[in-house]
Amino acid sequence: MADDRAKKLLAALRDVLSPQHLLVGDDEMAAYLVDWRGQTRGVALCVARPATANEAAAVVRACAECGTPIVPQGGNTSLCGGATPDAVRRAVVLSTARMNRIRGIDRATNAIIAEAGCTLAAVQQAALSADRLFPLGLGSEGSCQIGGAVSTNAGGTAVLRYGNVRDLVLGLEIVLPDGEVWNGLRTLRKDNTGYDLKQLFIGAEGTLGLVTAAALKLFPRPRTRAFAWIGVASAERAVGLLGFAQERFDAALTAFELLSDNQVELAVGHLPGVRYPLEARCPWHVLLELSAARQDAVPEGDLVAALAEAAEEGRTADATIAQNEAQIEGFWRIRHAVSDANLAHGMSVTLDIAVPTSEVAGFLEDADAEVARRFSGAEVLIVAHLGDGNIHYIVQYAWDRWKALPDPQTVRSEIFARINDLAMAHRGTFSAEHGIGQKLKGEMARYRSPVELRMMRAVKDALDPRGLMNPGKLLPD
Amino acid sequence: MADDRAKKLLAALRDVLSPQHLLVGDDEMAAYLVDWRGQTRGVALCVARPATANEAAAVVRACAECGTPIVPQGGNTSLCGGATPDAVRRAVVLSTARMNRIRGIDRATNAIIAEAGCTLAAVQQAALSADRLFPLGLGSEGSCQIGGAVSTNAGGTAVLRYGNVRDLVLGLEIVLPDGEVWNGLRTLRKDNTGYDLKQLFIGAEGTLGLVTAAALKLFPRPRTRAFAWIGVASAERAVGLLGFAQERFDAALTAFELLSDNQVELAVGHLPGVRYPLEARCPWHVLLELSAARQDAVPEGDLVAALAEAAEEGRTADATIAQNEAQIEGFWRIRHAVSDANLAHGMSVTLDIAVPTSEVAGFLEDADAEVARRFSGAEVLIVAHLGDGNIHYIVQYAWDRWKALPDPQTVRSEIFARINDLAMAHRGTFSAEHGIGQKLKGEMARYRSPVELRMMRAVKDALDPRGLMNPGKLLPD
Repeated sequence: MADDRAKKLLAALRDVLSPQHLLVGDDEMAAYLVDWRGQTRGVALCVARPATANEAAAVVRACAECGTPIVPQGGNTSLCGGATPDAVRRAVVLSTARMNRIRGIDRATNAIIAEAGCTLAAVQQAALSADRLFPLGLGSEGSCQIGGAVSTNAGGTAVLRYGNVRDLVLGLEIVLPDGEVWNGLRTLRKDNTGYDLKQLFIGAEGTLGLVTAAALKLFPRPRTRAFAWIGVASAERAVGLLGFAQERFDAALTAFELLSDNQVELAVGHLPGVRYPLEARCPWHVLLELSAARQDAVPEGDLVAALAEAAEEGRTADATIAQNEAQIEGFWRIRHAVSDANLAHGMSVTLDIAVPTSEVAGFLEDADAEVARRFSGAEVLIVAHLGDGNIHYIVQYAWDRWKALPDPQTVRSEIFARINDLAMAHRGTFSAEHGIGQKLKGEMARYRSPVELRMMRAVKDALDPRGLMNPGKLLPD
Repeated sequence: MADDRAKKLLAALRDVLSPQHLLVGDDEMAAYLVDWRGQTRGVALCVARPATANEAAAVVRACAECGTPIVPQGGNTSLCGGATPDAVRRAVVLSTARMNRIRGIDRATNAIIAEAGCTLAAVQQAALSADRLFPLGLGSEGSCQIGGAVSTNAGGTAVLRYGNVRDLVLGLEIVLPDGEVWNGLRTLRKDNTGYDLKQLFIGAEGTLGLVTAAALKLFPRPRTRAFAWIGVASAERAVGLLGFAQERFDAALTAFELLSDNQVELAVGHLPGVRYPLEARCPWHVLLELSAARQDAVPEGDLVAALAEAAEEGRTADATIAQNEAQIEGFWRIRHAVSDANLAHGMSVTLDIAVPTSEVAGFLEDADAEVARRFSGAEVLIVAHLGDGNIHYIVQYAWDRWKALPDPQTVRSEIFARINDLAMAHRGTFSAEHGIGQKLKGEMARYRSPVELRMMRAVKDALDPRGLMNPGKLLPD
């Protein structure tokens, strides 16, 4: 961008934002130009921090007038570099952090309206204060923002019962690429009046417009829960146990996670004073949680009976039922320690694939064989939201082995290509919940059909004809 | 269309379809040119009945080459003339009726792939044969087709628990307006790889492409249910009882319908041998159904306890609990008799509005006052899916009164305008589940903002630039 156009834009932005909310210095911009893991770095003309949708619209309008690209950024917790500017364009980073009001809660309608910059934890807390549940749960919930969660269609551990973010959105407020505001903040459960425009912006990673607020579904707050840590003999048995649990518990089944034994061992070893949760060693571990709306319901009794039946039928190898809330929290702590434990132990190449449930066992068998054949010295760790068919397939090298590899980046790319190829061959996907961002654009070009990419490009051109919204993300070049 | 172009197109279609599946005579086309209620009539060049997606694609391709519009038609049960050709263009009606195979059921994944022409009842039945539930339920389920249900984002009586069709679709196969086939028949619960294109076609009423098959979610089959017919003193009390039931039963609550007393009286009177379901007369009636996955769960016991508590708190005026499945069916028969009963009794102007649950009582008060003020001699009947805030607000004139009106069509339009205005003023919508079709295009222009209509038009132009798919539907002229 020519210098005089940049000056003109900065002058226009100074009319909208006070100096402390229009960052131009390298130091003050630094945190906005790199993703949280330090893998993606970019440049920017400035960082704009509007406090309202109207201010955000004025920022976008000024950018549109100068033809300057905009990179929306929430909590900057993307795992794919989706919210970080690239190193080519001198874009305006638009931080949603100051748009962080809860605009309202409607208990009878079970709806909350939250601005994009509210952290997920703040939305959860606001719901709880109204004796309701906002069920989205993510590792980054303390820092990720709801606008980013909407823009990436976030998943997490409660998808089995409550769905992805797409299933939780009732309405959106959007600043369009020309700076116009679309108020689509309805709180209706049924509305068949033309194309459902909000769907376009959910999961679009900011490439079609800027989410400034969302109307979200709330649910009755579960009053009681029960939890079992279950050992099973194989991934296939785990899939069978999932079907058994779904038939038996239906919507009361709120989590069904699968971990490989080496993953459990790493996580347990990482937490001081924590013991292996089962009596006997088991190759696979299922974490099963039930919850119920009523205080007087006792899902624990049901769980005990179901597990006895499952054991009798040979579905399980071992199981322990949490005796109280503290034990439930303790078991979840092990589950949530896997990222830190893996980071401490070695280099993890983590894939975010999903396959139909019926393909899980076959995929794992093929993928494990492929790793054994091609990537000697690597170990496979499995962390799966099995209820959704979503497998974080982790190929791990101990740090010393990784550093000894002659060309680690090629190994990394090869792992991605081989395992994603297998996921696709098993009718799956190469990005279940993390999105595309900058990281997986090559995979988009490789795995998505020409007709599909053409439709996506047509949608992009229709809504953002000048390509100003988060360029270089999601769509292949 | 010039005659020679029509001839050329018919010749091309004869290469694709045998004569008995390419209807050109007035008699054989007649049933396809009028909606099931006889309110919308149109003309067509021919009716094409392809048996496969490839045949359908060839039909669409031939039409595209000649620039001839296509009107997709499933069971022809639209309430808005969405599947009937108009009287202006000589379009090709593309009937999906012969594309009626169940392509597969995956029990572990809880998914079914059904072709567009499968009736809803056939999909329900296929699911049951695999010991699964496909939860969509509509009055027209014996004749409506799944492609039409997807294209109209159908609702029905189980939305409270299972959502609209949009929530039930995992993937779609689409013939695009140029005749290309997009195979998006994935069966994944999580797939964040670019724009979620299937969302565009759900509820688009065939204006963006032709649905030829759908991958749909299945659920565990409920093993037991309980049902209560409850009398309440006011609509506000009914809303309060809904909140009470949701907190207490959460996902086990599968239906919560509201009927006005005069509507119950009409329905009961229409069914020979059926008695008023409560002991004492009540102004409002709630139909509450619970279901549970396990045979050994006894939701009836829970229901008895909850109703005792509700009665003690003054939430209910009277209640009766169904003693067995036959009684449950009997109660549902009364609910399902309302359309026939109303038709027999008088002229019903039926609105399909929705408002946030917190606005239901206020909306009803305002609307009733408006009817009393402006439409003397009319009676208001209420049939509501209260759990979704969806109210079929029915303004009824006895047949003799209706026929005595000097200008009934103006009265009809006035009712629509006044009641829809009030629904919008209560943050609601003018079409909750029936869609737009030809009938509500004026309302689209009146109630949807310019920015929203502009986006819809941009989407239409992006996917169907020549405007060949179901022209004259959904979007205002």
